[in-house]
Amino acid sequence: MLSIEWTASSGWLAPRITPYQNLSLDPATCVFHYAFECFEGMKAYKNSAGDVRLFRPDKNMARFNKSSARIALPNFAPQSLIELISKFSAMEERFIPAARGYSLYLRPTMIGTQRTLGVGPPGSALLFVIASPVGPYYPTGFKAVSLEATDYAVRAWPGGVGDMKLGANYAPCIIPQLQAAKRGYHQNLWLFGDEEYVTEVGTMNFFAAVRDKDTGKKVLMTAPLDGTILEGVIRDSVLDLARERLVPEGWEVQERKFTMPELAAAADDGRLIEAFGTGTAAVVSPVRRIAWRGRTVECGLAEEQEVGEITKRMKDWIEGIQYGDEEHVWSLKV
Amino acid sequence: MLSIEWTASSGWLAPRITPYQNLSLDPATCVFHYAFECFEGMKAYKNSAGDVRLFRPDKNMARFNKSSARIALPNFAPQSLIELISKFSAMEERFIPAARGYSLYLRPTMIGTQRTLGVGPPGSALLFVIASPVGPYYPTGFKAVSLEATDYAVRAWPGGVGDMKLGANYAPCIIPQLQAAKRGYHQNLWLFGDEEYVTEVGTMNFFAAVRDKDTGKKVLMTAPLDGTILEGVIRDSVLDLARERLVPEGWEVQERKFTMPELAAAADDGRLIEAFGTGTAAVVSPVRRIAWRGRTVECGLAEEQEVGEITKRMKDWIEGIQYGDEEHVWSLKV
Repeated sequence: MLSIEWTASSGWLAPRITPYQNLSLDPATCVFHYAFECFEGMKAYKNSAGDVRLFRPDKNMARFNKSSARIALPNFAPQSLIELISKFSAMEERFIPAARGYSLYLRPTMIGTQRTLGVGPPGSALLFVIASPVGPYYPTGFKAVSLEATDYAVRAWPGGVGDMKLGANYAPCIIPQLQAAKRGYHQNLWLFGDEEYVTEVGTMNFFAAVRDKDTGKKVLMTAPLDGTILEGVIRDSVLDLARERLVPEGWEVQERKFTMPELAAAADDGRLIEAFGTGTAAVVSPVRRIAWRGRTVECGLAEEQEVGEITKRMKDWIEGIQYGDEEHVWSLKV
Repeated sequence: MLSIEWTASSGWLAPRITPYQNLSLDPATCVFHYAFECFEGMKAYKNSAGDVRLFRPDKNMARFNKSSARIALPNFAPQSLIELISKFSAMEERFIPAARGYSLYLRPTMIGTQRTLGVGPPGSALLFVIASPVGPYYPTGFKAVSLEATDYAVRAWPGGVGDMKLGANYAPCIIPQLQAAKRGYHQNLWLFGDEEYVTEVGTMNFFAAVRDKDTGKKVLMTAPLDGTILEGVIRDSVLDLARERLVPEGWEVQERKFTMPELAAAADDGRLIEAFGTGTAAVVSPVRRIAWRGRTVECGLAEEQEVGEITKRMKDWIEGIQYGDEEHVWSLKV
């Protein structure tokens, strides 16, 4: 594990890479009481040539610093942390299987370590990075997920911290997730407000491909970054690739608010082409259906079909870049 | 410290009281990543007769269980935990000064301890209680605080978890608090929505005593428990005491939404009698003024005055019960 301690008086101390080990913390440490904690999720990929690569680590570093600043934890120079994580990934290279779908999951984490029950800015912190080899999210190929729309609990709010990768955003999401699971759904879909805006899926961003009611044009749409949406790296990559590669094919790309009734109407009219979630774990996750207000909104997949065309192409494009099959500025060779 | 471990398979293990010691936790423990943590704040009081007392511990236990359940952590039998905390307080009795204003601050805390980066319900948890002697919040007598109204950040929202004592509610509050401090204010005052509803102060509930515009009646008011307000034990006690002891004097007690413009209008008309925060730390904390939209709302105190009449009476009533000067069902003799 990679560890870097910080104190308000001395700043960041020397980074250390040590064997994986427990943290020994006073029970009054502020991370246990006031959730001074933020993290990132990223992966190191190895291709058949043995190259180790990171995917858009600059995006993770920018978000990590944004998260930490929001909870009065320190920032770390992005380029330096990328170099440290690169070094760490290279050292752990034997744990990265050289096979498509496999990678080393990396978890940069920052916690407040001050021993105090007073609610104030932490005077000390620990940044650590731990890692674990992970296999394909869907070992037997894509499995489309079923979602349950959640309207009784609200994940994020304008002026809140829902766009940050803070620990604080996660624990309160478990009960709605368990409720959805109890009724047979894989994840929940967070709606917002009386308008029932579609925001995001459990721990993924959400995309829908629809045919526009008026123009008949194909539209790929996702909720805008209005402070309630996690600023996903895959979300951003899907938008960029769609603008670059789908727009020339006649698609429109829209970052805009859209509602569950709007999505349901598109499904009813046969205009909902497909839907998917995006995130570091699965890259893209096709959505089969959404349970909402006692009805089921089918998301465009045929019964025997587990993934839509756009979802599949996005996965292939992004993985192609992640593993270095396609040379791209997003892929950093370690 | 008092420690009780829980596992999903075995339930709660035997409680242990041990010397204060560090917790040794795997860096993948879910409390560090997803804020599986909640706590309570309570105090043990000792009077000149040497009696040790807890104040309404049943309220803390009920809230603790409500908090833990909301983040998929286990519940603990309230009466058993009160007995354990009583025993613990009795053992630590030598750390409780037998003087008014002094007490032993008790911090029951529950954290998720499962080692996993998967976002799911923790399969293990640790409940611990630590303690620290504390002195009077205002050693030299009351000091009225100045508040800055916060409208650019939102602490809590309907359908969220702002009514729970989760760690998740605290880290995001520090920056607005520091912003207020930078401009010379002691705490911030959380407003909500376009209407600018007055919700709560930094880490306290908020009360205002006003004279009604129409009836001329004296009204003690605080925001209602609509899911965005922390369900403070002192808040509840002030309301109960006001209904019992102020209503016969002609006061009205209102739990209702009120706005910052409404409060400012009352101040402008000379109808704002006094305002105060409530919480376990200070019991009541008089408010001198509120900075809001570039103006100052004076809260009824004369320049040389540090506390209003109702604020002072509430403190005396509640402390009288806490220290056992007045025998009351709220005070549990250990």
